[in-house]
Amino acid sequence: MGRVTERRRVIRIRDGAVSTRPDTLVAEEPMEIRIGGKPLAITMRTPGDDFALAAGFLVSEGVLASAGELANIVYCAGATSGGTAGPDGAESGVGTNSYNVVDVRLADGVPVPDISLERNVYTTSSCGLCGKASLDAVRTTARWALDTSPDTPVRITPETLSALPDRLRAAQRVFERTGGLHAAALFTADGELLDIREDVGRHNAVDKIVGRALQQGRLPLSSAVLMVSGRASFELAQKAVMAGIPVLAAVSAPSSLAVDLAVETGLTLVGFLRGSSMNVYAGEHRIALDAAATTG
Amino acid sequence: MGRVTERRRVIRIRDGAVSTRPDTLVAEEPMEIRIGGKPLAITMRTPGDDFALAAGFLVSEGVLASAGELANIVYCAGATSGGTAGPDGAESGVGTNSYNVVDVRLADGVPVPDISLERNVYTTSSCGLCGKASLDAVRTTARWALDTSPDTPVRITPETLSALPDRLRAAQRVFERTGGLHAAALFTADGELLDIREDVGRHNAVDKIVGRALQQGRLPLSSAVLMVSGRASFELAQKAVMAGIPVLAAVSAPSSLAVDLAVETGLTLVGFLRGSSMNVYAGEHRIALDAAATTG
Repeated sequence: MGRVTERRRVIRIRDGAVSTRPDTLVAEEPMEIRIGGKPLAITMRTPGDDFALAAGFLVSEGVLASAGELANIVYCAGATSGGTAGPDGAESGVGTNSYNVVDVRLADGVPVPDISLERNVYTTSSCGLCGKASLDAVRTTARWALDTSPDTPVRITPETLSALPDRLRAAQRVFERTGGLHAAALFTADGELLDIREDVGRHNAVDKIVGRALQQGRLPLSSAVLMVSGRASFELAQKAVMAGIPVLAAVSAPSSLAVDLAVETGLTLVGFLRGSSMNVYAGEHRIALDAAATTG
Repeated sequence: MGRVTERRRVIRIRDGAVSTRPDTLVAEEPMEIRIGGKPLAITMRTPGDDFALAAGFLVSEGVLASAGELANIVYCAGATSGGTAGPDGAESGVGTNSYNVVDVRLADGVPVPDISLERNVYTTSSCGLCGKASLDAVRTTARWALDTSPDTPVRITPETLSALPDRLRAAQRVFERTGGLHAAALFTADGELLDIREDVGRHNAVDKIVGRALQQGRLPLSSAVLMVSGRASFELAQKAVMAGIPVLAAVSAPSSLAVDLAVETGLTLVGFLRGSSMNVYAGEHRIALDAAATTG
């Protein structure tokens, strides 16, 4: 099982009946991300895919855009409990090292982000970016436009979109056991599942997806659709844009700022994707609508 | 309506039929919290109760524990768009000032937190605290034990707990319109609603609750039950402990670290609170269980 889940004793109350039993919980542990040994951010995450998480976080922050810009990522030996660097996997035996600090070394020539106080406030808050100025920052930092796909622009049908939530749910492994995980999945425009990650933090699940794509040399993800299990916040929309993902679909509601960002960057933003219903908030040119069916 | 919600055009697709209509979204905007003019953190929040949010954040961080320690809070005039300081209300006309930067002045003698880089990483990450060391930090920083109530210990029946989710839901105003909000509510041990806040960020909803309590001189909330609409993360458990709240109940799953923190601090942690069912993960001495009904 590893550290993706943990067992705890729980007292169950069901219609007045009380019993004690073991329960499976989603594991939540802090992870500190360092660049060249300097602390950059701490995130509460579900252990596993830690190197992908770090890489994806740095894509979101505009530090990395290709595998070649990343020299390597290691666990900091002894950063917490004196162990040695270990494998980047939740399923492995992890011994006494907590594996909660990772150090990223950038390739030669890649600018190290300015870890000043102001920059730090900026990057480590869960928002990442700030208001109107932030929309400019995303545009400035993103290395690519959203429509660089050979199939420009990506087109996806409402029917394909409607099938995604069930596929996401079917592919979630840990949620079934714990009920405590957010999921993010990457699909093709034809609805084929490319990758899925689960995490106690929604933003981490997306960072893990993006980080794996970076490690595999697949950025920008200019033909992909990102599906998230919950709501579409500004932060998630931003992460999609930074990874070059042209379509973001969410089971629940988007926020106002997520819609603003989508409009500004050309991101296709779909919310309330449930059954055969959905709301398209921006970028509807990528949705294959039957023009005749459009009514005012 | 103010800035709690915003209207955007949306394309609705329902069983193949396409229509365009206005949609109500939950507002999401960044807010920067400063102490004595120095930036401390940025959070993405739903505007409204901004001063309570700042105060509650500082309770969670161990900076504030009573109204007397807080001199005042103001919007930073012109921090973004040159306006003047304005009211702390979502419903008010806010003109051109974005009201997204608040400055907190601590009372004389209250130590200003060390806004060093390391401290800053620590406070502005969405986790707030870090691993095993963090459990010590919470214990160190909290100004009170959880059982200082005159009714020590607080006792709550499963029946009362079972009634809370419906009361929370009934009291949610903005969710009905947007589907995009997390809620946190404060109840008495008899199930009476004391306060409810909604926010695009779950941690913000709790900070707003706690901040209002601080402003009203009601900390520690040693007789109260905190109910949250989603999952019980470490961060939310920590916020309950820092406010002296002895019972945290969540509709969904807790994380492993939330349970660990609850066990360490004596917090009563209830998860999967649905209908007449619930799981008690820690602090069961505050749940009025019929001893005869307890089976192994």
